[in-house]
Amino acid sequence: MTAMQRSVVLRRRPVGEPDASDFEIAESLVPTPGAGEVVTRTIWLSIDPYMRGRLWDRPSYAAPVQIGEVMTGETVGEVVASAHPGFAAGDVVLGARGWQSHCVSQGSALTKLDRHAAPLQANLGVLGMPGTTAYSGMKDIGLVKPGETVVISAASGAVGSVAGQLAKRAGARVIGIAGGPDKCLWVQETLRFDDCIDHRVPHLGRALAEACPNGIDVYFENVGGDVQAAAFALLNPFARVIMCGMVAQYNETTPPPGPNLGFVVGKRVHIEGLIVTDKPERFGEWRALASPWVKGGSLHYRETVIDGLENAPQALQMVLSGGNFGKMLVRVGPDHA
Amino acid sequence: MTAMQRSVVLRRRPVGEPDASDFEIAESLVPTPGAGEVVTRTIWLSIDPYMRGRLWDRPSYAAPVQIGEVMTGETVGEVVASAHPGFAAGDVVLGARGWQSHCVSQGSALTKLDRHAAPLQANLGVLGMPGTTAYSGMKDIGLVKPGETVVISAASGAVGSVAGQLAKRAGARVIGIAGGPDKCLWVQETLRFDDCIDHRVPHLGRALAEACPNGIDVYFENVGGDVQAAAFALLNPFARVIMCGMVAQYNETTPPPGPNLGFVVGKRVHIEGLIVTDKPERFGEWRALASPWVKGGSLHYRETVIDGLENAPQALQMVLSGGNFGKMLVRVGPDHA
Repeated sequence: MTAMQRSVVLRRRPVGEPDASDFEIAESLVPTPGAGEVVTRTIWLSIDPYMRGRLWDRPSYAAPVQIGEVMTGETVGEVVASAHPGFAAGDVVLGARGWQSHCVSQGSALTKLDRHAAPLQANLGVLGMPGTTAYSGMKDIGLVKPGETVVISAASGAVGSVAGQLAKRAGARVIGIAGGPDKCLWVQETLRFDDCIDHRVPHLGRALAEACPNGIDVYFENVGGDVQAAAFALLNPFARVIMCGMVAQYNETTPPPGPNLGFVVGKRVHIEGLIVTDKPERFGEWRALASPWVKGGSLHYRETVIDGLENAPQALQMVLSGGNFGKMLVRVGPDHA
Repeated sequence: MTAMQRSVVLRRRPVGEPDASDFEIAESLVPTPGAGEVVTRTIWLSIDPYMRGRLWDRPSYAAPVQIGEVMTGETVGEVVASAHPGFAAGDVVLGARGWQSHCVSQGSALTKLDRHAAPLQANLGVLGMPGTTAYSGMKDIGLVKPGETVVISAASGAVGSVAGQLAKRAGARVIGIAGGPDKCLWVQETLRFDDCIDHRVPHLGRALAEACPNGIDVYFENVGGDVQAAAFALLNPFARVIMCGMVAQYNETTPPPGPNLGFVVGKRVHIEGLIVTDKPERFGEWRALASPWVKGGSLHYRETVIDGLENAPQALQMVLSGGNFGKMLVRVGPDHA
């Protein structure tokens, strides 16, 4: 195999917003799989807000990417060479990691996909990590009861759009917060949230209060900053806050102060952080539950696709600034070679 | 019955630290009990930080005391007149409420006490609301495992002293934070915490970090402010924070900003507010569990006693400024009339 492998490697740590010049393309021969390994040709690369965290050189729940290392990211790819008995050339698989045209993986880390069950890239979005995050957040922390008010920030995003649709299915009144009229319209018209507030309005707190006359029982946090402050001010006694992300500050070197937590005592609020990989069983549960909904068209999602591996840094920029609409994807190669 | 009843009523809402002049003494005839009612002569009045919250005219989990109303507070008293079949003159009871020499209560709200089971005032402290708060915090939120590191703020207080002793019984390494060398010494020598940090040291964060080389798994929050910031900075993944109180800011008109909550996501921290009356069953459980420990001398506690109902406002000042040492009590009348 003499094909070339292209990889996006970290050239320097971005300060503030990451830029294309913080990365560079490295080329090498496509590797040959060792025993138990599988080499895939990348079709889809997932771009997610958590990736900004991997660019800081500080302790977190996952190790940072080092300078000169290939940037990490989940892919859907086609097997081009296999030294693992469970996989053969032509199989389509989830789980190979890296911003690269070809990945070598342990076969044990891969999941074989059915090409016809759902669009392949749905396995990176609505049926994959972001969808499972929404599901786990609602199942393990949110515990929504019928009639409660649920607020979802980044409501049109890959996580928020699923979280809100699950809250609707649970019988809640669901209010989204999103950036701009197009996203808000889609959240209301297609996702059928009860309302959606544009976080760019001049008086976000007032607008949210008007949309939540009975306060907030569950807040699904993806954003932080002013959006968080507006939602926290409206929390009801015994409210649950699913702390999934705070994308508004991921580029900040020094995070701003947060809310005074006195209200947590008097209102007996439950605030809990969520990293979906802590509960690996949720992935299979969610895929089984949601696949028929996706196939039947009752679970909606939206994608922003950029073509070309070399544009992955731009895709990351977009996801951190709200320039995407729904799940952010890079199409690295054709579906069928 | 022509004896006089003395009551401390709210004269005006304190701004900042409450002062004796914010209250006044009202006199009236001791009431006669109506059907089902009981009149008690107060022996002990409990003074607790939550009382500051009742002086603000703002929504909270309990209604504020109104101007001209008797200030609220739990008492131990002796029955002087009863129109309830379950109580007779001479009985000693818990549950009558009010900063007053005599209280009239529904008999159904009272619990008869055994004069010989424990010192009467222990029913307001180690065996009562503060002790039960510590027990519920540990049982319902803290879930301490052997070998974990537990940090207790206001460690010599009525709640903190019990919380830390429970954590020691659970096999944890327990670090207290308290104000001044006398309290720290007692926490280490008598309560047998592994260490106790004086929050007045110049570099609290560094001192706490040195005392917690393995980070913090459970933080019992009674204080807020700089103490909170120091503890939050050391929280481990999957840490639990019991939000019981933030006494450092109870006199503040405008609470200061709090911590940026980004760490909650990555560390999957669980932060939860605690008001002990939400779980009324915990009171009886704790009394049954802890009474033998108190009698046997294996559960330690400490009290600061002020004599005279008219000094209750000063007692509240003390409890809000850390001028007390252990459970704050006002001795309103003699144990035996």
